[in-house]
Amino acid sequence: MTRERDGDDLGAILRSLPRLEPGHVWLVGAGPGSVRLLTVEAVGALQQADVVVHDALISREVLDLARPHARLVFAGKRGGKPSADQRDITATLIDEARTGRRVLRLKGGDPFVFARGGEELTKLLEAGVPCRVVPGVTSGVAALAAADIPLTMRGVNQGVFLATGHGADAPATADSIDWRAVGRIGQPIVLYMAMKNLGRIASELVEGGLGPETPAAVIASATLPEERVVVANAATIAERAAGVQPPAIVVFGEIVRTRDNLRRLVREMAEGMVS
Amino acid sequence: MTRERDGDDLGAILRSLPRLEPGHVWLVGAGPGSVRLLTVEAVGALQQADVVVHDALISREVLDLARPHARLVFAGKRGGKPSADQRDITATLIDEARTGRRVLRLKGGDPFVFARGGEELTKLLEAGVPCRVVPGVTSGVAALAAADIPLTMRGVNQGVFLATGHGADAPATADSIDWRAVGRIGQPIVLYMAMKNLGRIASELVEGGLGPETPAAVIASATLPEERVVVANAATIAERAAGVQPPAIVVFGEIVRTRDNLRRLVREMAEGMVS
Repeated sequence: MTRERDGDDLGAILRSLPRLEPGHVWLVGAGPGSVRLLTVEAVGALQQADVVVHDALISREVLDLARPHARLVFAGKRGGKPSADQRDITATLIDEARTGRRVLRLKGGDPFVFARGGEELTKLLEAGVPCRVVPGVTSGVAALAAADIPLTMRGVNQGVFLATGHGADAPATADSIDWRAVGRIGQPIVLYMAMKNLGRIASELVEGGLGPETPAAVIASATLPEERVVVANAATIAERAAGVQPPAIVVFGEIVRTRDNLRRLVREMAEGMVS
Repeated sequence: MTRERDGDDLGAILRSLPRLEPGHVWLVGAGPGSVRLLTVEAVGALQQADVVVHDALISREVLDLARPHARLVFAGKRGGKPSADQRDITATLIDEARTGRRVLRLKGGDPFVFARGGEELTKLLEAGVPCRVVPGVTSGVAALAAADIPLTMRGVNQGVFLATGHGADAPATADSIDWRAVGRIGQPIVLYMAMKNLGRIASELVEGGLGPETPAAVIASATLPEERVVVANAATIAERAAGVQPPAIVVFGEIVRTRDNLRRLVREMAEGMVS
């Protein structure tokens, strides 16, 4: 009844996964950080790839699942620093595939959520390279969970706006976000890659109508040992989180208050167990 | 160099996972459907639980990963049908934990994304039951990927609004969505559990300012063999998708056009290979 399993069923699933063929590229989400939040299919991809082209945010523990002789290619971009050129990354993927290698493009979070997976997929297909996309646990959801903030709570919100803060300081384009309009939406706002522009974004949200007292939080390095959470409000979060290093997720909304309640309950439970 | 692995590394990770203790409850996301999109930690939870309390949307293949003698408790709610009462589900979880069982509460998608995980967690902690939350791949992201629609594309969108359509026919409350305001946000809109109210929601989005010609899609049973995709526009999607059975994800936005482009590229590649 308590028979222990050591991945034997999982072994069967791994053997039943699609094969990563030579000359093909898989775009795979690695989730927010912890190896525990990899999907089964991401593990299967790591165990098949000849080359792993990965972001800065992929942990050593995850990369250690690659085959012993797999080549690891760093294609990192870090917020605020000069970055690997997107064209270079795409060219690398195409070259590796054309050489007949099994190519894994491993991205933090989900490849289609603020991660340029759609652009890479398009370029690869245009170059005639067969591709496959494997979703991952997106960091916006997992980071909030790690900070005891459910993304949705009945009675608090029925929707949530996710956005990247990456382009908030660039000249307006067709895809630009109208932050003042977002400030009026009445539902929580979750931002990826927003640390550099957080002051500007928070100001525009408040100018648009978001209450300055609205709770806000920054969750950095979620699910990893160096995880850090800063809680403040819409008016103060940029200043209070100024020293926090990316990767980080930012959230504005009443939903942040849930954290205090959940943590109080856990504390009371711990105290009840002691007495 | 091509040594095959059968979950041996994975076995090591599974052995290193936190233990699901007797009397504890884990709230775990099972992802959109396919067993391949379970997280490693979800697999570990299935391999430890004495009782698995699961939704209607959890596939047989996923439940088959539970231990041979684990008890499976169906706590399903299906859109539009009379549902298991939320209080009954919470009471079951508390009872099972107090009896000293290792309890796995397995939810489709992510437990904190329109899945009442926050409410269940609060009730469990209030009852003094130790809990843990494990994020999953949320269906809104994975369903779009399955339909060749990246959630975000540079040049198309820098944000996305996720919402549940479940309460759209209920009297307005503090957490209700102002669909007309959402119609003006200028970024894609992704809806969970919206099939029943799709006509009403689409009308209000268009009244608010969403162009009636805006592409829209419904993706049902994403990542499962019975997956089905219907593409239309904001004015016609409710009628065109009227016969589609839940579970389904709905998306409105220019991002839907990406599907045609990606599928054309794949088709051209296939034709190129034949010639």
